Parts: sequence; C-alpha cells; structure tokens
Amino acid sequence: MSETVFTYAAPALKYGPGALDELGHDVAGLGATRALVVTDPGVLATGHPERAAQSLRAAGVEAVVHDSARVEPTDASLLAAVERARAEGTVDAVVAVGGGSSIDTAKAVSLMLTNPGELMDYVNRPVGGGQAPSRPVLPVVAVPTTTGTGSESTTICVLDVLQAQVKTGISHARLRPVLAVVDPELTLSQPAGVTAAAGMDILCHALESWTARPYSMFAAKQAHERVPYCGANPIADMWSERSLRLLAGSFRRAVANGSDREARGQMALAATFAGLGFGNAGVHVPHADAYPVAGRVHDIGSDFRPAGYDVDEAMVPHGMAVALTAPAAFALTFDADPQRHLAAAGWLDPTGEVTADEPSARLPAVLTALMRDIGMPSGLAEVGYGEADLDGLVEGALQQQRLLATAPLEVTGEHLRGVFAASLHLW
Amino acid sequence: MSETVFTYAAPALKYGPGALDELGHDVAGLGATRALVVTDPGVLATGHPERAAQSLRAAGVEAVVHDSARVEPTDASLLAAVERARAEGTVDAVVAVGGGSSIDTAKAVSLMLTNPGELMDYVNRPVGGGQAPSRPVLPVVAVPTTTGTGSESTTICVLDVLQAQVKTGISHARLRPVLAVVDPELTLSQPAGVTAAAGMDILCHALESWTARPYSMFAAKQAHERVPYCGANPIADMWSERSLRLLAGSFRRAVANGSDREARGQMALAATFAGLGFGNAGVHVPHADAYPVAGRVHDIGSDFRPAGYDVDEAMVPHGMAVALTAPAAFALTFDADPQRHLAAAGWLDPTGEVTADEPSARLPAVLTALMRDIGMPSGLAEVGYGEADLDGLVEGALQQQRLLATAPLEVTGEHLRGVFAASLHLW
Repeated sequence: MSETVFTYAAPALKYGPGALDELGHDVAGLGATRALVVTDPGVLATGHPERAAQSLRAAGVEAVVHDSARVEPTDASLLAAVERARAEGTVDAVVAVGGGSSIDTAKAVSLMLTNPGELMDYVNRPVGGGQAPSRPVLPVVAVPTTTGTGSESTTICVLDVLQAQVKTGISHARLRPVLAVVDPELTLSQPAGVTAAAGMDILCHALESWTARPYSMFAAKQAHERVPYCGANPIADMWSERSLRLLAGSFRRAVANGSDREARGQMALAATFAGLGFGNAGVHVPHADAYPVAGRVHDIGSDFRPAGYDVDEAMVPHGMAVALTAPAAFALTFDADPQRHLAAAGWLDPTGEVTADEPSARLPAVLTALMRDIGMPSGLAEVGYGEADLDGLVEGALQQQRLLATAPLEVTGEHLRGVFAASLHLW
Repeated sequence: MSETVFTYAAPALKYGPGALDELGHDVAGLGATRALVVTDPGVLATGHPERAAQSLRAAGVEAVVHDSARVEPTDASLLAAVERARAEGTVDAVVAVGGGSSIDTAKAVSLMLTNPGELMDYVNRPVGGGQAPSRPVLPVVAVPTTTGTGSESTTICVLDVLQAQVKTGISHARLRPVLAVVDPELTLSQPAGVTAAAGMDILCHALESWTARPYSMFAAKQAHERVPYCGANPIADMWSERSLRLLAGSFRRAVANGSDREARGQMALAATFAGLGFGNAGVHVPHADAYPVAGRVHDIGSDFRPAGYDVDEAMVPHGMAVALTAPAAFALTFDADPQRHLAAAGWLDPTGEVTADEPSARLPAVLTALMRDIGMPSGLAEVGYGEADLDGLVEGALQQQRLLATAPLEVTGEHLRGVFAASLHLW
C-alpha cells in the first residue's frame, strides 16, 4: 500500500536586519536563565557571538561563549564541545551562532547534556547505535551567519566519525532548533567564494527536495516508522520553488557584490526556505555524491584550495562538493519527472537565456551556466579527481543509502559511475 | 523608523487520509499520559472524537472525551468547559476534535488549567485584562473536522463576551497548537452549505493576509511589542498564494460533490495553508465586518437560516459573514496595491473567465461569480440587513481596531459605510 500521509515541522523564525539584537528577549521567552553560545573560532572573530551574548545578558540571561565548534565536525570535536559544556555547570538553552558546523555542534551539545549514554549511541546505524533520545533536549536557538547550511531548519547533526572514516549523522525530530534568528546583516562579510559554494548548497537543497521521490510513492509507514524526511510533498515543494525563484534573482548579484543588501537578504531567505523544504522532504544524489567528493580529497593527494576559505590543506567545501555532480545528477533523474526538471530550469532561468539541445539537458545547462558565472570549478578534475578515482567515489556515494532512497529512481552503482564520470569536466 | 523584521511560527503538521489513526502515537510522543479530548455535541455524534480517544488509549494515553465546546464560544461556554476539565483531575495534553469552536475551547482549557487568575484576565483589552500567560500551557493538538477555521494554525481563541455583547479574543503565542492533524477524510460528511461558508472563510483568510499592510510599512517595534500578526510578509504571502491556487481548483467541486476526495483533500490543505498565512500576517476589513454581520442578526430580527446548518434561530455563519462584504472590501483596498489584487484574481480565475469593466472591479467580480456558484446569499439584504442597519454595522466593525490596523489603508467609518452599503445587494 502506498503512503497517504506526510509530515511537516519547522522552527519558529525571526527574520530581518536587526533580528540578532532581539535574541535575548526571545531566549528569555523560552524560560532560559543561562545560555551557552556555541560558535567557531572564525565566527568568534567577527564579533557576532559576543553581540549575541550581550543581547542575552541585557535580557537577564547569563551567557557563556564557547568557540568549541570545528568546521566539518567530527565525533572528537563534538565530544570536546560536550565536555567543555559540561564543565560550565547548568545551562538551560544552547544558542548557535555560525554556520552549519556551529549549529550542528549545538545540537550535539543539547542532546548530550540531557540524555544518557555516549554520543555514538545516537549516531545513525550502522556506524552508531541509532538510538532515539529518551528525554527532551535543551532548546537550541540557531543564528546562521552563512547563507547555505539550512541546519537551522533541520533535525540532523552531520559529523565525521574518525575511526570509521565516514561522514554520517545524528537525526531526530528533537534536534530541530526551536527558533531560527536569520539576520542577513550577519552575512555581509561572507567572502564571494563562500557565498558561491554555500549558495550552491542552498540551490541543491531546493532542487533535490523538489525532485525527490514523492511521499506518496513510498510504501505506507506505521506511525513509529516515520522519519523527518518524507519525500517531495506539497509543503516542501512550495518552499523549494520559492527558494529557487529567490536564488534566480539574487545569487549572481550576491557573489558579484557582497555589499548588495537586497541580494544578501534574498539569499538568507532562500537558504532558510530551502532548509524548510529539504528538512521535510530530504535530499538525494548530489548530496550523496558530496560525501566522497569532500571526504576523499586527502586520499587522492589533491592540493585544491577553494577561494574564500582560509584553509591550510586541501578541501572541497560542502556546497561545492554537492554542486560538482549536480548537473549530471539532474540529467539522470530527468526521466522520473521531466515536468519538474523543466519547471525548475524555468524558475532559475526565467528569460530562457540558457539553451539546450534536448529537454533533459536544460536544467544541467542552467546549472552549468550559473556555476561558470559564480566561479565554481569546471568539474571534479579541477579539484583533483581523475578516471582512476571513480570506483572510490561510487563506493563512497553508495554508502549513503538513506539519501539515495530519496532519489526518484532506484540508483545503482552504474548510475553513480555515469554521474561521476560526466562530472569530471563540466565545461 | 520602519519595521525591518518579521516573525513566523507554525504548528507541526501531519496531513493525509488516515492521519487521525496516528494521533495516539503523536500525543504519546509529547510525553503525555492523560489527554482531554475536547469536542462539541455535533461532532461527537460523528464518532470522530471516540476514534481519536481509541487511538490515544491504544498508545497508552488515558483519554477523556468532553463535548464541552459550543458553536461560537462565549465566556460562559469556555468557563463551563474549563470547570468540567478541572473536575477531571490532572491531564497533560488537550486534543481538540472539531471546528474552530472546539479548537478555541481547547486553547482556553489549556490556558486556564495551567495559569492563575480568571479567564477575563487574559481576554484582549479593552474588554479583558490583556494579560499574557505567565506559565507554559498544556500542549494542544488540533484535529480539524471542518475545512475553514485555520484555528489549528493560529494563536487566537475567539469568544463572545456576553455581558459586554462583543466578540473578542485571547491571543498569545503560547496558545498556538503544537500539532495539527489534518485528515481530509474527516470532512467528507461536511454538508455543502458548510463547505461553502467555511470555504469562503479560507478564501478570505488567504486574500486578506495577501493584501494586508506589509510588515515593512508598520513602525519599527521593540522585541516585547511584537504580536503574532505582523502584516504581509514573504512567508505568509507564499501560503496565501498556494491556498488561493488550491481553492481555484477545488472549491466549486467540493461544494458540488462532497464525496470528491481529491477536492476535499485540496480544501483541507488550502484551509491549513491559509491558516499558516493569516496566523502570521493577520486579516483585516472582511473579518472586521464579519463581527457585526454575524453578531447583530438577532437585533435586527432576521429569520435567516443558512443551508447546511442545523440551527433553531437566525444565524449567519462566520465564513458567510466574512464573505458578504469581501467583494466591496477588496474594491476599497485595490488602490493600496493594484498588482496584488490582480494577481489574486488571476490565481482564482486562471482562465480569465470573469470579466470586469475596470481593473479594480476584477477581484470583486471573481468573488461574486464564485459566491453565486456555491450558493452564498446575494448580499447583506438576503440575510436581513437594510439601509437602516448600516450605522450599527459600521459601529460594530470600527470596534475591531486590531483587525483594521492590518488593512493596507487607514480605514474610516465612511469607508466602512461604503463597503456595507455596496454589500447589501451583490447581484
């Protein structure tokens, strides 16, 4: 029997320039008296976390700032953040100020300060125990400072498990932040390269949830079997469409001129909207592919350094890793629902500027044209991958069965091999 | 200084045929062990509340069913419901099964079982004390059985205060249900007349929030001054548009054939979407007008009996009362934003079937054509009002300053008089 039910949940939202200054009032309104502000060292240096702490204190909420988040969190970095939080004594709310890493770290802290056992007990199977939190967690308030992650809207904390050499997650409805404070002024200092990569993450969140297998095409679930990600559905569709339309009008502008406040504002909205979409529908092939693309960059001895990122080793940022196989992935998924793929191409390229020889090539062509304009690499080859690495990439993507199950077709290793091969040179 | 910030909040949602059967699992998931099911005698007779109670019991949640809600709740009916609930001893969740009256009654019960003082302390000023609840309320889970109210999405409990002879409300963010379970199968037995009137309520929720004064055109507020209704904003706009598009494809069909499951499903979605829109943006002139239109029907000695409602006295259902002045109200608001009014007309009449002499008459013409098709009265005159009643209607609408402040223009008594006069005979 086919599924007849879908679910939807979202954090409350406060959006607009100046929203950060009301943080204290909003956290006090949750009944909190002592809050932990979780951030990373890079964001700490911008002064935003201290501004958050000041707003908390002005509202009578004691505030402690920890720069305990690490870019691309690992089990070790999360445990260290939890240990540092435990040493602070009682807190009754966790405020994340930063990108996805800070928000995900705050989720892990909120979980482990309230629930028994070890972090690995809660990590998705088969890597971890896949246990659900038995007790309520501390409320997490998310203040995103980059436009991309969408973590402020979702139930997942992504982490690298070092010993297993695998990226996986902790996912449970209780991990969803209760409030997202989206102040686009915080993103004004984001470098163009970060805006471009993180923006491709937004775009793929929206495109993947829009083209995901519809909820009604899964087998009917029992109540206890439901997960937050239920496939494309009328509500996620709406968020995805609106996000793509916002991106069409603002993405190139925000990359070209980071001081364009209107474009920054629209990108911040687009990021949150896409998060509300994929946080309920799910993502599929490009995100599954992104795990090995980002994860194997050291194994292949790449020396790729992304513009805009202050890194001292090879790195493919998450949004870039997602983007690099997106054109080929949406060529693969085209037949599952041509109309949706063409509609998305139309939202992203409303004047029909980008042409393609056949309908299935239109959305890939629109994506490729955008990626050229915003300075994405020209393909997997540019970040260091070659023909010899295809087997490893396929193997890594196949491990992401939770994501592949959301694709609108049964994805095989052959499919993925084709996608990775076509992504070596996009232009 | 102009406002730069808007807010958004919503209940979690479970939608689809069969959703009601998962109620127990979902309420247990809130940590509840004993729930009060609030309904009204009419809905009780359908068996839905008992089905809800069975689902609760099967999930280990003790359930008590009270048919303590009254159509168009009053302070007296709410107090009686609270008294009956108090006599049950401890409950830790309130489940509403029914229309807006049941959901609003559940909100009042949830508030008064947890907070000190009297009901009138919490009623909006100037009728009541306008106090905010000082303590968390019991979680309310709403199971709407009619497609209209949107109360499952909103923070307000509407009531008639008998002594003051005025309809007002209790409004606070804490009153918003935590979960809406929208099972369109529950609406299959809704009579055509109820589908028509309640459907006009949906339509006006969406149209009024879409045409509301934009949030950025209010004066800047401090954090503690914010209210759940913040004017038109990008998120409410999205819900409103989608609701209107759904209504365009389903409203006439659902009235004509109540067994059309697809149309019922779309109407149920449209109702929830419109609730998510107006629950954050607000409503304005048609809803302000509806208070005296529904409220003064006894004073004028009307003998109007609406089709589909089992009533033994004159009554203008809420949705009908809202609809009757909507065409004239949207002619009044046209100049504030012609493009929005024309866009809405286009969503409701995508083939451009309804013509009008001038742009400002297009949306009113689309509404009037719809109202004729679904059997709405031909104007205020048909429900009993005449020229002599205009002063009283204007006076009543002017009392709804909270709603009128959301209109996209400064609404005067003269404006309202023009709207009521033009609404006496719509065709």
